[in-house]
Amino acid sequence: DSRMAGANGSAAAEAAARRVGAPTNPMATALLTDQYQFSMAYAYWKASKHADRAVFDLYFRKNPFGGEFTVFAGLEECIKFIANFKFTEDDILFLQSVMPMCEDAFFDYLRKTDCSDVEVYSIPEGSVVFPKVPLMRVEGPVAVVQLLETPFVNLINYASLVTTNAARHRHVAGKSKVLLEFGLRRAQGPDGAISASKYCFMGGFDATSNVLAGNLFGIPLRGTHSHAYVSSYMSLDEIPDKSLKSKDGSRVCKDFVSLVKEWLQKIQLADSLCGVFGETNQSELAAFASYALAFPTNFLALVDTYDVMRSGIPNFCAVALALHDLGYKASGIRLDSGDLAYLSIEARKVFRTLEKEFNVPAFGKMIITASNDLNEETIDALNKQGHEVDSFGIGTYLVTCYSQAALGCVFKLVEINSRPRIKLSEDVAKVSIPCKKRCFRLYGKEGYPLVDIMMRESEPSPKAGERILCRHPFLESKRAYVVPQHVEELLQCYWPGTSNKPRVELPSLEEIRGRCMQQLEKLRPDHIRRLNPTPYKVSVSAKLYEFIHSLWLNEAPVGELQ
Amino acid sequence: DSRMAGANGSAAAEAAARRVGAPTNPMATALLTDQYQFSMAYAYWKASKHADRAVFDLYFRKNPFGGEFTVFAGLEECIKFIANFKFTEDDILFLQSVMPMCEDAFFDYLRKTDCSDVEVYSIPEGSVVFPKVPLMRVEGPVAVVQLLETPFVNLINYASLVTTNAARHRHVAGKSKVLLEFGLRRAQGPDGAISASKYCFMGGFDATSNVLAGNLFGIPLRGTHSHAYVSSYMSLDEIPDKSLKSKDGSRVCKDFVSLVKEWLQKIQLADSLCGVFGETNQSELAAFASYALAFPTNFLALVDTYDVMRSGIPNFCAVALALHDLGYKASGIRLDSGDLAYLSIEARKVFRTLEKEFNVPAFGKMIITASNDLNEETIDALNKQGHEVDSFGIGTYLVTCYSQAALGCVFKLVEINSRPRIKLSEDVAKVSIPCKKRCFRLYGKEGYPLVDIMMRESEPSPKAGERILCRHPFLESKRAYVVPQHVEELLQCYWPGTSNKPRVELPSLEEIRGRCMQQLEKLRPDHIRRLNPTPYKVSVSAKLYEFIHSLWLNEAPVGELQ
Repeated sequence: DSRMAGANGSAAAEAAARRVGAPTNPMATALLTDQYQFSMAYAYWKASKHADRAVFDLYFRKNPFGGEFTVFAGLEECIKFIANFKFTEDDILFLQSVMPMCEDAFFDYLRKTDCSDVEVYSIPEGSVVFPKVPLMRVEGPVAVVQLLETPFVNLINYASLVTTNAARHRHVAGKSKVLLEFGLRRAQGPDGAISASKYCFMGGFDATSNVLAGNLFGIPLRGTHSHAYVSSYMSLDEIPDKSLKSKDGSRVCKDFVSLVKEWLQKIQLADSLCGVFGETNQSELAAFASYALAFPTNFLALVDTYDVMRSGIPNFCAVALALHDLGYKASGIRLDSGDLAYLSIEARKVFRTLEKEFNVPAFGKMIITASNDLNEETIDALNKQGHEVDSFGIGTYLVTCYSQAALGCVFKLVEINSRPRIKLSEDVAKVSIPCKKRCFRLYGKEGYPLVDIMMRESEPSPKAGERILCRHPFLESKRAYVVPQHVEELLQCYWPGTSNKPRVELPSLEEIRGRCMQQLEKLRPDHIRRLNPTPYKVSVSAKLYEFIHSLWLNEAPVGELQ
Repeated sequence: DSRMAGANGSAAAEAAARRVGAPTNPMATALLTDQYQFSMAYAYWKASKHADRAVFDLYFRKNPFGGEFTVFAGLEECIKFIANFKFTEDDILFLQSVMPMCEDAFFDYLRKTDCSDVEVYSIPEGSVVFPKVPLMRVEGPVAVVQLLETPFVNLINYASLVTTNAARHRHVAGKSKVLLEFGLRRAQGPDGAISASKYCFMGGFDATSNVLAGNLFGIPLRGTHSHAYVSSYMSLDEIPDKSLKSKDGSRVCKDFVSLVKEWLQKIQLADSLCGVFGETNQSELAAFASYALAFPTNFLALVDTYDVMRSGIPNFCAVALALHDLGYKASGIRLDSGDLAYLSIEARKVFRTLEKEFNVPAFGKMIITASNDLNEETIDALNKQGHEVDSFGIGTYLVTCYSQAALGCVFKLVEINSRPRIKLSEDVAKVSIPCKKRCFRLYGKEGYPLVDIMMRESEPSPKAGERILCRHPFLESKRAYVVPQHVEELLQCYWPGTSNKPRVELPSLEEIRGRCMQQLEKLRPDHIRRLNPTPYKVSVSAKLYEFIHSLWLNEAPVGELQ
């Protein structure tokens, strides 16, 4: 790898990079940051301030999609980013060309820069998280940590947004449905798509259509054919080899196409169907028969190219029943247009009728997949109407997070050289919570999380069974005593730097997905419901409350009305 | 490169890959497609249909953002994609593992597959385009062209969407303003950001803050420091080296900080300012002074960390005037919160007053940059209120295309083995326009484009000065005669395959940007205005109209009301 070869970093940094692995996207390199981060690094360096020990919190201010929860994702990519963080000679040459006013010695400093003295504490990936509580705390030399701001925020923002979106889709669809991510074509660029596939799986989807995502992350792959496949056929004569061996290998059907035609006729004449099916589209029948010959064990057909009920369904059933004669079991259909509630119910009726009419066990349970611009609202509407869809294929609205295309994670300085810092704003919601903090989730008797609390690092941890005062960070009157049944420390050490603290290993994608599912299940249902969810409480300790407000008064200018 | 080394493609394909170059995103490989494209490829192969010559059109159905124009982008990445299209042995092994039901010979076929017999005709990148007219026509073996569907649509959708968004922002801001793309932190993943930087520049932005995009595409880099930089300082004592050489090198100011303090006092006491400025925040003053010492030729300060008018502006002016004493010219300020119209006007007044008071030429022309969740609407509102902003820094809403996060490009089969195909739908807007087509833009006397027309390939081209009937593709009564002053053929050959047609070279990013600017300027202003824009007309020839409707009647089932 050319970055490895040209690297300036230490042997320890290289070992860490090998252990953790490279970022999924090869473009996630040390140049993936804002130009002003380099300007600041230079200004710090010029003022001999670059090694000042800074603590930054990464957090967001508002849950997305009008909800009251967020799923935290993107940590693994951040850790891979810092494990591989270094400047190649090409990077240095480029930086020199765009910052010609900077002294050469600064670039020598960058040549030696890596993240070996940075520490990263983070809530585990896949956790349910809430506004204001730091998702990550990053400590280290101020110039280096500033260079990490933009890539970290980039890697967390979309990851957490789309994971949350996926979790919301899972919630509205219910546990029993199969959810397929079909977003590659509409995603914001190649890794908009690849990240979407990864994080939708994390948020509770079952599979993706994205082959590269399947390859990179081991996510199950699913999909069916397209309308173009159906329209590419003109007639049944286009199928050169019409033979199909039975599933058990015991016999060969020499003319599967004739068998399909026979079944089509039987369906058309079936008493129980009262002759609802007339002529069907022969291009479509040819496309289905041909697809079944290629995938007899896994036949799934898109039935809406011409007319779902008049052509797609009878054609599909004819092919499926012919397959059944040879011991195969067809998988099902996909509906990609029209009234999905009505069509799924009508299709199900036909499948059930044929199960009885021709005594084909389980034919009524054929899988019905629906797609076509689905989102939380349309799935909710389908649920209210009643439908027979088993599986949803969701693309555009899911992966682009159409209803809210960005999460506003920020990265704020909370302490430098052990001195707490606050960022003020006329908008109270934008005031940062100063100090290096520890964060805890307090659980109640019923096992639900009750409140998150932030404390100064020096304070003793909350203990199960001991009463503690939780205060709203800004509103004086909002406070409550809590006696937690169980206390969970939120920020864990994922990158110890030179601190010798024990390091948490990065879990697998499956484990993160499991955590996400489990955490959502543990949450009180009213926090998660779609309509008017209850906000989860986020608080600070009494001591941190006092400190914030003294610092605030100290920093804020006294106004003068004129 | 490992893909090169493991490649199965022909020498010709490898030469093409070298000539055209690799896709910007290394993840844009042959696996970046939907799983069902491989399923279809296998089904085609099983039916010996994989080499059938297919023609697909790539087009969209509706202009984004409530507008009546779209800028086409992403072509270069598509051409790079097909130039590098091939399967490595690792890819093949993976595909075998997920498609265990497919015969080995199919994978041998994939091993030999590249895009050497595919032809790509396209509207030039950076062109203004309209619904229904093919942006690209892709011809080739049906199995191969299907594998290109998903990556092409992925590479075009977001590229065209964000370029259009940038062009709309440029339109509302006006030609004289500087537009900076600041979206990296909020973009949908690393290459959501990198693509955004590239395509926003194409659509008319002047610079980006994204260093990697500057490196990859040569886009100018711009940016200032952040709030954290300001809060990282506590006092003026933190500046160890206070000396600054004058711009001409003739003298050294040993204590630049004292000079700044003197200027601050002068500003506070200036008669013309009537004593509006009192005490300012000393952390901020220290941060500004330190930043100026690092960037004396290029001093740009973020002035809203504490209080714009009470602290940021006087602190900035003190540092700027001290720099001026030493022959430097400060660049300006950035406002990132509050009432941008009011603050920019007030800041401008101060700059002008100081220009007069202290006789500092051009001090009143200090550049004022505004940022903070800007979009088309907020810029439009600023324009209506009046403001003194010279430069806009735009992030989230621009790069995520927040107001419409996806463009719905589709890829439809229009012909196979020289037989035209149509995709029907109950929704007329979704019916595809069949046949391999040529497309022309007809220009009127005033130089504006009047109408785009699609024709069957066999028809003679429209000629300047000759009357031609342009028909709405679906509505019988909508038709008009046009006598074009000038005729432009839209689809050009960018990838000739084995056809020996002359190939158009890929232009540089600067050239594409120039085309985009020029095309938008040539468009009749009412097509481009924000409020109630006029739809541009898209038509078909009389011959194509007749053909579409005969094919439609032929394919569509006659309904039966029950």
